[in-house]
Amino acid sequence: MNASALPGEDAAPPAVRLQLDADGRLRHLLTLEGLSRTQLLDLLERAEALRAASDNGAKPLDLLHGRTVVNLFFEPSTRTRTSFDLAAQRLGATVINFDIASSSTVKGESLIDTVHTLEAMRCDAFVVRHREAGTPARIAARLRSAAAVLNAGDGNHAHPTQGLLDALTLRRHRPDFTRLRVVICGDIRHSRVARSDAQALVALGAGEVRLCAPPELAPDAEELPMCRRFHDFDEAIAGADVVIMLRLQKERMHSAAIPSEADYFQRYGLSAARLARAHPDCLVMHPGPINRGVEIASAVADGPQSLILEQVANGVFVRMAVLAELLAPRRAP
Amino acid sequence: MNASALPGEDAAPPAVRLQLDADGRLRHLLTLEGLSRTQLLDLLERAEALRAASDNGAKPLDLLHGRTVVNLFFEPSTRTRTSFDLAAQRLGATVINFDIASSSTVKGESLIDTVHTLEAMRCDAFVVRHREAGTPARIAARLRSAAAVLNAGDGNHAHPTQGLLDALTLRRHRPDFTRLRVVICGDIRHSRVARSDAQALVALGAGEVRLCAPPELAPDAEELPMCRRFHDFDEAIAGADVVIMLRLQKERMHSAAIPSEADYFQRYGLSAARLARAHPDCLVMHPGPINRGVEIASAVADGPQSLILEQVANGVFVRMAVLAELLAPRRAP
Amino acid sequence: MNASALPGEDAAPPAVRLQLDADGRLRHLLTLEGLSRTQLLDLLERAEALRAASDNGAKPLDLLHGRTVVNLFFEPSTRTRTSFDLAAQRLGATVINFDIASSSTVKGESLIDTVHTLEAMRCDAFVVRHREAGTPARIAARLRSAAAVLNAGDGNHAHPTQGLLDALTLRRHRPDFTRLRVVICGDIRHSRVARSDAQALVALGAGEVRLCAPPELAPDAEELPMCRRFHDFDEAIAGADVVIMLRLQKERMHSAAIPSEADYFQRYGLSAARLARAHPDCLVMHPGPINRGVEIASAVADGPQSLILEQVANGVFVRMAVLAELLAPRRAP
Repeated sequence: MNASALPGEDAAPPAVRLQLDADGRLRHLLTLEGLSRTQLLDLLERAEALRAASDNGAKPLDLLHGRTVVNLFFEPSTRTRTSFDLAAQRLGATVINFDIASSSTVKGESLIDTVHTLEAMRCDAFVVRHREAGTPARIAARLRSAAAVLNAGDGNHAHPTQGLLDALTLRRHRPDFTRLRVVICGDIRHSRVARSDAQALVALGAGEVRLCAPPELAPDAEELPMCRRFHDFDEAIAGADVVIMLRLQKERMHSAAIPSEADYFQRYGLSAARLARAHPDCLVMHPGPINRGVEIASAVADGPQSLILEQVANGVFVRMAVLAELLAPRRAP
Repeated sequence: MNASALPGEDAAPPAVRLQLDADGRLRHLLTLEGLSRTQLLDLLERAEALRAASDNGAKPLDLLHGRTVVNLFFEPSTRTRTSFDLAAQRLGATVINFDIASSSTVKGESLIDTVHTLEAMRCDAFVVRHREAGTPARIAARLRSAAAVLNAGDGNHAHPTQGLLDALTLRRHRPDFTRLRVVICGDIRHSRVARSDAQALVALGAGEVRLCAPPELAPDAEELPMCRRFHDFDEAIAGADVVIMLRLQKERMHSAAIPSEADYFQRYGLSAARLARAHPDCLVMHPGPINRGVEIASAVADGPQSLILEQVANGVFVRMAVLAELLAPRRAP
Repeated sequence: MNASALPGEDAAPPAVRLQLDADGRLRHLLTLEGLSRTQLLDLLERAEALRAASDNGAKPLDLLHGRTVVNLFFEPSTRTRTSFDLAAQRLGATVINFDIASSSTVKGESLIDTVHTLEAMRCDAFVVRHREAGTPARIAARLRSAAAVLNAGDGNHAHPTQGLLDALTLRRHRPDFTRLRVVICGDIRHSRVARSDAQALVALGAGEVRLCAPPELAPDAEELPMCRRFHDFDEAIAGADVVIMLRLQKERMHSAAIPSEADYFQRYGLSAARLARAHPDCLVMHPGPINRGVEIASAVADGPQSLILEQVANGVFVRMAVLAELLAPRRAP
């Protein structure tokens, strides 16, 4: 999970310690690793409260009125950027969407100089997505203000709001995690979603978390020791209560020596037939965007057991909760 | 007016029926076809009221406070996207401008999956521009929420807010449409503006609508039967009270076997000399952006008979009116 | 400082006269040239008041509620565009960021037609950056409404808000300018920052302004007559109270026949050793983004004498002050 350092910069500092202040309170959200069950539950409760207010037709809040949230996305993203954007705006924040292509990185300004510049402009939070694991932590370590960093996905390291929103979604259907058998299937090795999901599920007491991947796409042996490992999806899914499918990136398929998408679907795709091997009420999740017919059949993705669009809906509330948690108490009168 | 279906998707459903609810109320705005004179006048009155409030220095309204409007533009556009953006913001809505190039369509997510994702995030309206006729209707047919679709221009099919704003602009100068002779001139065949304008004018009782185009750029014989057809602009413009010029796309000029822009201007351009053949008070309109010296002379575009910038101004009020009509009554307490 | 005219357009009109109304009040901000000491001080005082309110935790103001500010950036920019965006939003304005690449200039619409279109949509201010000197003045000369133009940098002509923010920053540390010896060093010839800084400093009574550049990058002999000129940086910096370093654009280095960045740094870079030749309390400024190791050493840029991030912070307050000055009194009831 270590990233190679950016040129001229330090290796990624430990996100687990960096995100807590001296009192153990959350100061950034870089990873779910190391967060207590209580901390996770507090965030989920806060998200539920925001969801209930929205269901009741409440107008947007002004909890973050006067605060500025910057979306710093160095990878293209539809849903995550829009989800953070809406979450911040619906809390009354000013949002700056930083278009990386047209920014001063064009002029060779380093990422850290850009962050210091935005801090000087009194930006209060940085939502960061970057293909290099550790970039959000590296930014957090070098901040000069009380700003917060929210990891919106860094390399294969972590995607903590995805882990939270998956936990929130699942909990609404299965409030008791203790007997749940959850399968996460796909390219676990390169998946920040798998890591954050597994950490959330284990911290919240899930009965069993099974990881299923082609051998070449399994994580290193010492990683995620609290999970059971499978290479055969039919075996992994047997009796499962929840299946979380991961998006397949085509270049990874080739590195796993899988000749075609059809072949991948045959071995690691979630078809209706394969889903029938799970518990009859088994729930289906996917972080999106889905590759129909590659890792999941359309009939399953759109079927009655699918929670995929609920995940999207909950994503906004989880991000509102995290922004409120990190920003609301600061600079308060 | 039928679009070829998007790969793997259905042919466009009938926009005329789709946009009305069971009570005949407007649920989406996909086309002006089939809208009653009363429905059109209600929208124009609403736009006039918003204009009057703005003229009196009223602050922005919060009619759409808490609502989210998504601009889904799959074609580049300055004025229409900005006009919708301002309209929504001035009603207090949250606006998401969806940058298609940097979105997950990059990752191969289908348009419909993107829309479902945005609906799950509780977006209330989709303003859609697409080069394929029928795309807004296709989206409207597959919505899973009470969201509204506003057609901001689809192929050669319709541009309903342009039709409305042109009617609004004209009505301020010529309240009685019954004796008006209106000429629409240019590439009628490929023009969504021409279709929406003609439908609005006819529904509002215009005395005569004349369509003038090179033979290759005239619409099919069965289309727009309520209009008179011309190929000779000098003949079409004789005695006209209004001339609506269309933007020429250069690739169309070649398909009409017209060798040069100068030649096009000679035959179908609106020069001062040609305008002199119309009624002395003849008004000049153009949806913009204009090609100076191609379909219209600069002296005419900037002259005293031109309403071009009034059209732009009215566009914002018409879009505010449509957004208010479609969104304000929903989810109300 | 004259720009070649845009094709089909007039040469740049005189910004100095154009920006004042008949009563000598500021109507646009195109240049600092010709502004009185009182006018400059009023803007700085206004910026200080906004800063003090922000320091005291004041919520954003609604001074510009209902106003629309358009960012028209024809050159990529991180900090300036974001700074104006935040300034306008924090005053309650609606902001439209005009993405030039995806705009109708694609369709061949001229810049002036675009501006007239945006005026018709009731936009109140245009923040313009363009590589051609004189573009903001050209726009201001052809406006059809009471809108204001704010120059955010035009060619080598002017960057007036940078001049103001540099004066504001310096004044907080050195309230009395009369004895200050200020060095501006780098590619003066092509620098709009150098011109606006020198004009502000002279108007505010700076004791001495020294310009230091390689001979090929020095301004024309008749320009900036109130400044002393140097080619040797060691000589220029001797005893200085402030050093303002300019960003080097690599293509300019070659035109100055300087073979490498290391060579440039050796002759015109601000190293700690060179800074030691200045007054011991000498302050260091740079408009950013900085080229570390090219025009300034990292240790100096990040050192205790550097005001670089204070400049960024003050940029937002100066832009708020200018927007408030230009927009607040208009259309008031």
